[in-house]
Amino acid sequence: MELKNVDAGTQEPKLDRRSLLKLGVAGTAALVTTSTPAAKASEKGIGTTVYDDFPYEVSPDYKRFSEYNSVFSSDYRKGIPFDKPFYDDSRPGFSSSDYALSMASTAVWLSPSIPMNVVHQPHDSLPEPYKFPDNATAHAQIKRAARLFGADVVGITRRDERWDYSHVYADNWNLDVDVVPWEEALPGFEPKTVIVLGWEMGYEALATAPSQISDATANNAYSGLTYVLTQMTAYLNHLGYQAAPALNGLGLNVPYAVAAGLGEANRMGLLQNYKYGPRLRIAKLYTDLEFDEYLDKPVSYGIQDFCENCMHCADKCPSNALTHDIKTRIYTAEDVKDRPFTNPGVKKWHFDAQKCHDYWIDSGTGCGTCIAACPYNKPDFWHHRLIDRLNTVLPGPLHKFMAQMDLWHGYGNMFDEKAPAVFWDPKGRSYDGLKG
Amino acid sequence: MELKNVDAGTQEPKLDRRSLLKLGVAGTAALVTTSTPAAKASEKGIGTTVYDDFPYEVSPDYKRFSEYNSVFSSDYRKGIPFDKPFYDDSRPGFSSSDYALSMASTAVWLSPSIPMNVVHQPHDSLPEPYKFPDNATAHAQIKRAARLFGADVVGITRRDERWDYSHVYADNWNLDVDVVPWEEALPGFEPKTVIVLGWEMGYEALATAPSQISDATANNAYSGLTYVLTQMTAYLNHLGYQAAPALNGLGLNVPYAVAAGLGEANRMGLLQNYKYGPRLRIAKLYTDLEFDEYLDKPVSYGIQDFCENCMHCADKCPSNALTHDIKTRIYTAEDVKDRPFTNPGVKKWHFDAQKCHDYWIDSGTGCGTCIAACPYNKPDFWHHRLIDRLNTVLPGPLHKFMAQMDLWHGYGNMFDEKAPAVFWDPKGRSYDGLKG
Repeated sequence: MELKNVDAGTQEPKLDRRSLLKLGVAGTAALVTTSTPAAKASEKGIGTTVYDDFPYEVSPDYKRFSEYNSVFSSDYRKGIPFDKPFYDDSRPGFSSSDYALSMASTAVWLSPSIPMNVVHQPHDSLPEPYKFPDNATAHAQIKRAARLFGADVVGITRRDERWDYSHVYADNWNLDVDVVPWEEALPGFEPKTVIVLGWEMGYEALATAPSQISDATANNAYSGLTYVLTQMTAYLNHLGYQAAPALNGLGLNVPYAVAAGLGEANRMGLLQNYKYGPRLRIAKLYTDLEFDEYLDKPVSYGIQDFCENCMHCADKCPSNALTHDIKTRIYTAEDVKDRPFTNPGVKKWHFDAQKCHDYWIDSGTGCGTCIAACPYNKPDFWHHRLIDRLNTVLPGPLHKFMAQMDLWHGYGNMFDEKAPAVFWDPKGRSYDGLKG
Repeated sequence: MELKNVDAGTQEPKLDRRSLLKLGVAGTAALVTTSTPAAKASEKGIGTTVYDDFPYEVSPDYKRFSEYNSVFSSDYRKGIPFDKPFYDDSRPGFSSSDYALSMASTAVWLSPSIPMNVVHQPHDSLPEPYKFPDNATAHAQIKRAARLFGADVVGITRRDERWDYSHVYADNWNLDVDVVPWEEALPGFEPKTVIVLGWEMGYEALATAPSQISDATANNAYSGLTYVLTQMTAYLNHLGYQAAPALNGLGLNVPYAVAAGLGEANRMGLLQNYKYGPRLRIAKLYTDLEFDEYLDKPVSYGIQDFCENCMHCADKCPSNALTHDIKTRIYTAEDVKDRPFTNPGVKKWHFDAQKCHDYWIDSGTGCGTCIAACPYNKPDFWHHRLIDRLNTVLPGPLHKFMAQMDLWHGYGNMFDEKAPAVFWDPKGRSYDGLKG
C-alpha cells in the first residue's frame, strides 16, 4: 500500500489537490479490498458498529456526579467572574465589536421564555395525553418536531440515573440556592425518556478560538438550544406530557448523547458526531413520555481509534488540560483525589477541568481551541468522508497520516490572527440568496 | 428552438428525466446564444438587474397604511378568534399531534425574551457607540451577525417612512390599546436604518398546506425570527445603538425586503426570494445606526415576468383571493373603496385580504396554499436554477412551459392528503448526522 510511504509526512510538506486525489483513490481501493473483523457492515453503513447498551465500561462503584463539583459552580462559589468583560481593539477577535457579538449571543440563552431545569406541566389542549399509533411513529414525530424547530441532531434514549446529577442547583445557577438532591429539585417528576438535542457551532467562528468570536458561536448555540427546548417543551406539554428542559443542567450531556446514538466520546471529553465532529452544543429534555422500545442505539464509527492516533486537541490545548494517554481508561477514586471536578468510574479520556477552566478565566474566553483543532470539526468535504470510511477498516498508522494531512492543509493553525478576518469577510457569502 | 414545440404541454403529459435533461441542454444553449436588452450581465450575475431606487412605481398620492386597517386587527376588533382550536384525528394534517405541533411552534414567538415593537436602548458595555472602520465593514458585520444567529437571508436598507405604518398597535396586539401614530408609539426614536431578516419555512411542512403542519412551520419561522431579533437587538444595543425589533409590526415587510435586495414582489403580494421563493417569513429591526451609503440594492431576476405567465398561486387559491391580472397595476382610492384592507398607490399585484383571511377562519389554519403552489417554493435543484437563468433572456411562452413542467412533476397537487405522511416520514432522514 503506497499510503505507508508518506506516513511520516516529512518529505512532502504540502500535498496538492492532485496528490490528494491519488491518495483518495488509493484509500477507496483499500476500503474495497480490506477486510477486517471490525469492517462488518451494519444497518448504519460500512464501518459503523451499533451497540445495544452503553458502549463504555462503567465501574461497579461508579457514583453519580454532583453539580456542586462542576468547575463552574466551584468558581461561582469562589467569586471568580465567569464572563470577564474583555475587549482590546488592537487584538483580532477581541475588538469591541467582537465583544458585542459575544455578549449579544447570550440574549436568548440568559433570558429564556420559560425557565430551564424545572418541570413544565401538560397543557389542557387535548382531553387526554396523545397516544402515538406505534413506537416508530412516536420516535419519528418527536424527532421531526425537533428538526422543524431547528435542532441539527436529535436522539431519544431511556432515562439513565447514572447520568443525572446526584445534586443540582435548582434555581439555574442562583448562588443563593444550595444544591439539592435531584429528586428534591424536581419533586414528583419521574422522567422515563431523555430527548437529546444538538446545535451546530459555526466553523469559521470557532476557527478563531480562543476569541470573543468563538465564544459568540458557543453562546449562540446555547441560545438556539434554548429556543428549541422552549418549543419542544411546549410540544410535549401540548401532547399531554411533562417536560423538563436543560442545557448543561440536571445531568451529563455527553453520556446521554452517546446513549442516544449521536456519536462517541472523544479525547476532549466531548461528543464526537459523525457530521459535525465536536462542533455541537448539546441540550436535553426529560419527559414522562415512555417508549415501548428505544430505537436509537449507541454507535461507533471508529472515532476513539482515530483519537488514539491523532492527538491534535491535546497538542494544541493552551493549558495542557487534555491527556496524551493513548487509550481510554477508568480512573479510580484514588486517581482523582486532587481533582474534585473529575468523576471517576467510566472508561474514557479524562481532562483536567481545573486547568481548562483557569485558562478560560485568564483568556477572558471559553477557549474552544481543542474543538477547532479537531480534524472532524471541519464542514463536510470529501477527505472528511474518506477518513470516516477508512477509520475502522485500516489500522492506526493511516489515522496518523490522516491527522498529518490535516496539518498540511493548514487546518492545524490555532491562535491564527487572520481567522477573525475570515469570519467577518463578506466575500463569496450570500446574504440575499442570490449566490451560494 | 425545440422548446417551443412542447410549450402547450398537452401531447406529453409526463416528462421523464431524460427529456428534462435534453431540455436543460437546450435551455443552456439558449442562455448562451440569446441576447436581449434585459439579458445584460450585472454584478449579481446573468439575468439579474440591479436598481438604485425602489423598483416599483409609487403614486404621488400614496398614503402610509395604518395597522388599524390590517385584516388581522379588524378581526380582533370584531372578536373573531384568530387561532381557532382545531383538530380531527381522522383528517391528515389535522390530528391532535399536528395540532400540538402547531401550538408548540408559537412558544418563542408569543413569549419573546424581550418585547417586540418597542425601542431597546443601548447597553453601557462600551464607553461610546462603536464606530465601524468603514461602510463596507459595517454592512458585513451586521449581516454576518444575523447569519450567525440563524437568519437565512439578511439585507440592510435606509428607513423609508412610506413603508412604516401611519398608526401602530403600540402594545403588541393588545386590544385594550388603541392605535397611535407611529411617532407617538416610539417617542424620540428616529431610526435611520432597517435590517430585514428572513427565516425559511420547511418545504415538506408547507407542502401540506392548508393544515396544522403548514401552520407549524409558519409559526416556527416567527419563533425563529423572534430569536434572531432578540439577539440582533442585543448586538445593536451592545454596540451602543438603539434598536426596535418587529415581526409584522411597525411597518410593511415586503417593500422593505424589496428595498433591501432580498427579492421581488410576487403575484401573492409576498416577497419572492431567489433561493427560497415565497417560502420565507420576514422580520425587521429598526435602528438609529446610520450608514454612509446603503450597499444593498433592489434586484430583479425576472420573477414578475415569470408571475405574469405562471398563475399557479391564483389558480390554486381556495378562496379566490389572488388576482389573475396579467400585469401589475396601481390601484386608486376608488378601486379599493370596498376593500379597506388594501392600500392603493403602489404598482403591484393586489390580493383580496378579506377573502384570504375569511378562509383562514373557515379552515382553522393560516392556509399557505399559494406559497406551496409556487414553482419557486421548491428547494434547490437544477431545473429551478435553469428557470432562474432563463427568466430574463427568454420570452413569456417559455415561462408558461416551465410552469407547466412543474405541474407535470406533480408539484401542483394542493390539498394533497398524502403530504402530511411525507412530512412525518422518517425514511431517508438523518437525525444523528450519520446519513445525509
